[in-house]
Amino acid sequence: MPRAILATRPVGCPRHSLKEGALQLMKRRVFFISDRTGITAETLGSSLLTQFPDCEFQRTHIPFVTNESAAAKALSTISQASKDDPEKPLIFSTLTDPAAQKIIADASPYVFDLFGTFIGPLESAIGQSSTHTAGRMHGIGDSSSYERRVSALNFSLGHDDGLSPRDMHDADVVLVGVSRSGKTPTCLYLAMHYSLKTANYPLVDDDLERGRLPESLRRSRRRIYGLTIDPEQLSRIRRERRPDGDYASLNRCRSEVQRAETLFRTEKIRFIDTTTVSIEEIAATIVRDLNLH
Amino acid sequence: MPRAILATRPVGCPRHSLKEGALQLMKRRVFFISDRTGITAETLGSSLLTQFPDCEFQRTHIPFVTNESAAAKALSTISQASKDDPEKPLIFSTLTDPAAQKIIADASPYVFDLFGTFIGPLESAIGQSSTHTAGRMHGIGDSSSYERRVSALNFSLGHDDGLSPRDMHDADVVLVGVSRSGKTPTCLYLAMHYSLKTANYPLVDDDLERGRLPESLRRSRRRIYGLTIDPEQLSRIRRERRPDGDYASLNRCRSEVQRAETLFRTEKIRFIDTTTVSIEEIAATIVRDLNLH
Repeated sequence: MPRAILATRPVGCPRHSLKEGALQLMKRRVFFISDRTGITAETLGSSLLTQFPDCEFQRTHIPFVTNESAAAKALSTISQASKDDPEKPLIFSTLTDPAAQKIIADASPYVFDLFGTFIGPLESAIGQSSTHTAGRMHGIGDSSSYERRVSALNFSLGHDDGLSPRDMHDADVVLVGVSRSGKTPTCLYLAMHYSLKTANYPLVDDDLERGRLPESLRRSRRRIYGLTIDPEQLSRIRRERRPDGDYASLNRCRSEVQRAETLFRTEKIRFIDTTTVSIEEIAATIVRDLNLH
Repeated sequence: MPRAILATRPVGCPRHSLKEGALQLMKRRVFFISDRTGITAETLGSSLLTQFPDCEFQRTHIPFVTNESAAAKALSTISQASKDDPEKPLIFSTLTDPAAQKIIADASPYVFDLFGTFIGPLESAIGQSSTHTAGRMHGIGDSSSYERRVSALNFSLGHDDGLSPRDMHDADVVLVGVSRSGKTPTCLYLAMHYSLKTANYPLVDDDLERGRLPESLRRSRRRIYGLTIDPEQLSRIRRERRPDGDYASLNRCRSEVQRAETLFRTEKIRFIDTTTVSIEEIAATIVRDLNLH
């Protein structure tokens, strides 16, 4: 009963249309528009879209829309791209210039003005007018924060898989775990996003057999956080790197992970399972648990 | 005329109060509340707050508010922290659970519900109900995207300041510039945020004297992007790293930057001045210019 199926399909997305005899999935078109990088529009917009897991979205980013003429160009891009779409596109905008925003508003009835929606109520709450200045979205010009971030990154790059007692003293956080448990990406994220100086300590056979951390690390236990991972996933990840030998074998991965977790418990080190959580979440959990914000 | 000064100070922020005889700046208290990492709340909230450059804000992050009991605990934290404040706090929330959001709404008249404000209109636009599921904010469980990101990071870490013709072929983007012009942080950001495989090529004396790129690089010019920087800032950055010798001297920095920019123009490579822009903006510009999104 194809009619019944068609009648019950949700409006808007996903749609199917018969084209050249094949069933094709139609994606709802989405635009992220910003006067700077578009990160804010993308972050909130994507968060909202994940609440519609049955829909597929076709995303286009239009950053650096800094004036009315750029807004007019963006409007034309949107109209051109979506002219044959059965439904009007969704538009997430963080434009700070009301005139530019007004131009974009013509593109679709579904414009989500992430900036304008809140700026008025925020002005009332603060009791001041806002500057409506583009380019204030990422603290540009705050050079001390830029330098803090770059030195956190340089420190973290210089202390990936290596740690002297002095490094330990200088690090804001030290991640401990078996090889390929996610230490490096997490360290880099902590440095990039939270400007934290991070170091890695990979647990090797000696540590796992002893079931204790080296003395130099134990003294600063408050700054240490453990990472663990599902042994099967670990085995898969290691196989990609070194397919032969014992390193990637499931038995070896199981044994390493089990002994690492025992070590964390013995040493009273908090740890997180990285198997199914994003780097953002691992980092936010560590920052919260170690009070690093 | 202190009375007149008091009368004209903006309401809400900044406030001054006499405490122990000294003029003290009072900061407006701000909370970022989320059921996951809080990145979305912080990104949009901070963007909005930068529109009030005369105000100082005292920020607290409350992530992982996953249920009503956690919301009640957050409410108590907020009330306790702000009980002596002359004004109610600003609260940016991305809670997806309406019941938890309702609890937080009691904390202040100034709650900005970044999620709830848009989810209703978005449901209308899409023609579906949203799932109202917490934990959907960063595509958790999307393991292929996690792996793409981690391999982009590993590639980029492995090709920092080193490049064989084969690496060149595999990289999505190659950043070129003099030492300390910002290549490494930008590469890592491009890998972390856009899952792009990046490589670095540091311009050395040989390249600058010849005024051309090596042959292996020239063949893939479309994936190359140049970074330049103000010579005085470069000199300052280099001095921190190696205070002695010619490396950090202003003359040498001036000469290197000038010749690098000439080389970019000769080779028709687009380049960006990293002196006053954030890593986010440098990355977004490169992604836009090289059509990498």
